[in-house]
Amino acid sequence: MGKVTTSASMSLDGFIAGPAETGFEHLFAWHRNGDIEVPSADPRWSFRLSPPSAEHLRQQMAAFGALVVGRRLFDVTQGWGGRHPFGVPVYVVTHRAPADWAHPEAPFTFVTDGLHSAIQQAKATAGARDVGVAAGDLARQALDAGLVDELQVDLVPVLLGAGTRLVGDLANAPLTLGTPRVVESAGVTHLYYAVNK
Amino acid sequence: MGKVTTSASMSLDGFIAGPAETGFEHLFAWHRNGDIEVPSADPRWSFRLSPPSAEHLRQQMAAFGALVVGRRLFDVTQGWGGRHPFGVPVYVVTHRAPADWAHPEAPFTFVTDGLHSAIQQAKATAGARDVGVAAGDLARQALDAGLVDELQVDLVPVLLGAGTRLVGDLANAPLTLGTPRVVESAGVTHLYYAVNK
Repeated sequence: MGKVTTSASMSLDGFIAGPAETGFEHLFAWHRNGDIEVPSADPRWSFRLSPPSAEHLRQQMAAFGALVVGRRLFDVTQGWGGRHPFGVPVYVVTHRAPADWAHPEAPFTFVTDGLHSAIQQAKATAGARDVGVAAGDLARQALDAGLVDELQVDLVPVLLGAGTRLVGDLANAPLTLGTPRVVESAGVTHLYYAVNK
Repeated sequence: MGKVTTSASMSLDGFIAGPAETGFEHLFAWHRNGDIEVPSADPRWSFRLSPPSAEHLRQQMAAFGALVVGRRLFDVTQGWGGRHPFGVPVYVVTHRAPADWAHPEAPFTFVTDGLHSAIQQAKATAGARDVGVAAGDLARQALDAGLVDELQVDLVPVLLGAGTRLVGDLANAPLTLGTPRVVESAGVTHLYYAVNK
């Protein structure tokens, strides 16, 4: 059985998006600031990374066997055009499946009976590989339910001042983590924390 | 002339204190989790640190020549009993000097004409050494005014969920920083960021 991991690019002051969905040019600058090309699952574009970040992202893409995301992220990204960059099945937690989803053949599953069910389905699909749970409100719920094994943060050297927080107002705070594994890179510090349970 | 540095112990989700001044047992656990004794300026107690944190704190104590803090921190700590652990002069930004300060002989100066004045006075005292500006609202004002050269964060592996944020709602956000220098240690990751101006 793989791990359940929440990963996110985050500003030093704790935001995964700035006010009104801004700031992404800073939060994801490290996706395009290097010389090493790492293909995404979408043949139309690829990452261009510094060497430590390339190694980090390759490992992450190899590790994830399925993803769980919320409806808001799905809508904001327009469902990644039916092709998530990691190329794995995606479980979308939502109250109602979209009526007009343009890519019904794509490996996207709309889960209407809650986060636990979505994570269970994603685990069954991922097998020995990991399940990624998107940061923000979904991660907060998953952390409060004790379902997250690892927090992986790409810490970006910017202060956004306000916006969407990594996990928001946890009910079960304080929640202690292990000393992180650290990968230093240009314009980002990759941090891997085990969640203490 | 030294640098102006803001330094703080911060939770992974961006808080320098939990709700209602809680969480300090987590945020400052790294002050007491090692075998290396580093004396504070107060002979009644010392830090007990892991080796990388001991080196970090020794360098920091040697670097600072004066500190600027807000009235709230001064009150919460009861003015450190007249003896800040770093053993340097402290400038307290306040609307009114306390009438009943128990340690009038201690190197504490109450500055009633604002943050700029406090930083100027602290710089004059520090000379070639650095000036430390406390995190929170004071750091926000100093960052917005372009007065901070370096942000130094002791990133602690805990999620506090809510509380006092590192710098609060910056007016001049996004504010970009340089790629940090990183010192890995047990139960804390020391990060040093240059502030881009």
